[in-house]
Amino acid sequence: MFKLNEEQAKRIAEQLNYRWPDDTVVAVVQEKYSGKVLMVASMNKEAVLRTLTTGIAHYWSKSRKELWVKGATSGHIQVVEGFYIDCDRDTVLLVVRQASLIACHEGYHSCFHYRVSEDGKVEVEKEGPKFE
Amino acid sequence: MFKLNEEQAKRIAEQLNYRWPDDTVVAVVQEKYSGKVLMVASMNKEAVLRTLTTGIAHYWSKSRKELWVKGATSGHIQVVEGFYIDCDRDTVLLVVRQASLIACHEGYHSCFHYRVSEDGKVEVEKEGPKFE
Repeated sequence: MFKLNEEQAKRIAEQLNYRWPDDTVVAVVQEKYSGKVLMVASMNKEAVLRTLTTGIAHYWSKSRKELWVKGATSGHIQVVEGFYIDCDRDTVLLVVRQASLIACHEGYHSCFHYRVSEDGKVEVEKEGPKFE
Repeated sequence: MFKLNEEQAKRIAEQLNYRWPDDTVVAVVQEKYSGKVLMVASMNKEAVLRTLTTGIAHYWSKSRKELWVKGATSGHIQVVEGFYIDCDRDTVLLVVRQASLIACHEGYHSCFHYRVSEDGKVEVEKEGPKFE
């Protein structure tokens, strides 16, 4: 688990550029053992702080206008193992271990479960996106 | 190379929900052979159409307000090998082969080259984010 103290977390959170809607950064979530991209979410400063100090992924819901812990109701908690910031400092990458094989509220391993096939169809890829 | 005809591409592009700023979807770009997340960019409908019909990654620049081809000036073209859509249809995942080891305009393999260390420092990870 990747976890900082409050002072360290504050120093990191203050370096980010919250320039996406609702004063957020975009968070890409990648699964540690498989490398699969699980989902994309938004984080405001508070979500970044709580994620860094608890080691558990917190996000900002732009539709509900509230902070949420991934898995708070479903149990599909994401334990943070790595935290990366991009060159523009407006996007972060969380490398996580997920407490289940389900990241998507539709019951799939990854939210990116719609694959466009070579003949232009949209097909469900139950095991999530492949990169190899 | 993943490439559709115009009719197929149009059908896909019309299914997306361009609800991010400037009527875009968020595009996460993952490298095919390594699984590394290289960058995040924005795509409007035109960028999606051109990406799908040419097999080369096109994005929308929110700062310059123009369509751009990744690598048009640097040569670091991204050849699309896989195209995934998330459950909300407002985010896509491009699996690409990149024509060089440099995705970031700062000269790094991945834009996510700032790693937060266990003691809260920001360190440069030249080879990009690790997930294993």
